[in-house]
Amino acid sequence: MSTFLENQNWRYATKKFDASKKITAEDLSTLKEAIRLSASSYGLQPYKIIIVENEALRAQLQGAAYGQSQIVDASHVIVFANEMNFGEEGIVNFGKNMSETRGIPLESIQGYVEYMKSNITGLPEETRNIWSSKQTYLALGNLLNVAAELKIDATPMEGFVPAQVNEILGLDKLGLNATLIATLGYRHDEDLTQHYKKVRKSNEDLFITL
Amino acid sequence: MSTFLENQNWRYATKKFDASKKITAEDLSTLKEAIRLSASSYGLQPYKIIIVENEALRAQLQGAAYGQSQIVDASHVIVFANEMNFGEEGIVNFGKNMSETRGIPLESIQGYVEYMKSNITGLPEETRNIWSSKQTYLALGNLLNVAAELKIDATPMEGFVPAQVNEILGLDKLGLNATLIATLGYRHDEDLTQHYKKVRKSNEDLFITL
Repeated sequence: MSTFLENQNWRYATKKFDASKKITAEDLSTLKEAIRLSASSYGLQPYKIIIVENEALRAQLQGAAYGQSQIVDASHVIVFANEMNFGEEGIVNFGKNMSETRGIPLESIQGYVEYMKSNITGLPEETRNIWSSKQTYLALGNLLNVAAELKIDATPMEGFVPAQVNEILGLDKLGLNATLIATLGYRHDEDLTQHYKKVRKSNEDLFITL
Repeated sequence: MSTFLENQNWRYATKKFDASKKITAEDLSTLKEAIRLSASSYGLQPYKIIIVENEALRAQLQGAAYGQSQIVDASHVIVFANEMNFGEEGIVNFGKNMSETRGIPLESIQGYVEYMKSNITGLPEETRNIWSSKQTYLALGNLLNVAAELKIDATPMEGFVPAQVNEILGLDKLGLNATLIATLGYRHDEDLTQHYKKVRKSNEDLFITL
């Protein structure tokens, strides 16, 4: 069987972490690299990833996330935040990065940069914010998948008050908006949900072939 | 190095497919299973996945996707479509599925079903549509990642006119809306982009540690 599928069947949204077990620095680097390599629209990565190590901040985040215990018990807490009002500056920076990474002159990719600008900057701000928030879900997917490979447990969360998280972490001042939280670590023996069968739609219910 | 990271570095958004190479039935089953096992909000999977095999439909889709050649040259075309106006019916079906999958009486999960209803059905329709569309990005992530494991190339696409895709595939009549297309197959030798270095933000630019 595909290792990927084995890992998918191993993972579950962990309800209770063993607070005594910590992710190693090496594994944390792997988790971050998986996020960093994620696909995104045009490759623009219109988001920032916040790793919250400060315990006082984590306690405050728990309050903004309906008291979910994972926020304080997990080894690590990672917040995904999309860039609000993403536009020209982010696209120009991407062009510079492409030029440097590939060792090609900026002039040779100017056409592509202008093409991205014309596709993106003309969109209403709300549309761009939804677009950038969607990209964070791809990055979260990479994190969940690499964590499962490393046998690190994870809980993806949409259940929090973004405005509160933004204020606690100072994201609003950075033009960022929290879209997702992932808590990571190791499942507690007492977390009974680890034994529950995964509930998924059947092939018949999920797929349509035309 | 992590196999996941190796696969991430192998994959790229394929620009030109070798139309002569086809994905096997066994591999297609693996691709579908990875999508099926994807995490989603509450596990609700508020979307359908359309596998477009009909060549005439694929030719029409190409017209709705700015003529991108991958739509007709790739081995397979998969369209992700979120359920519009997702609400009580989908939640009740999920509850039945949970009851059957885990062999527990419906009554014992009624509280959880009501909890999901109260969180979701009261949201404005537009908010629910954005929420369900985001979930398709997690499912796409699973598809891209398992494809890379199988050394199957893929191109994720947002670049198409959803209204046209919906009409071509009859999705609007099913209460569905196309959010993403993935074309899958095998890279053409002539696709020069396979040799380009991946452009990604640096750790310093992407991550914030608090």
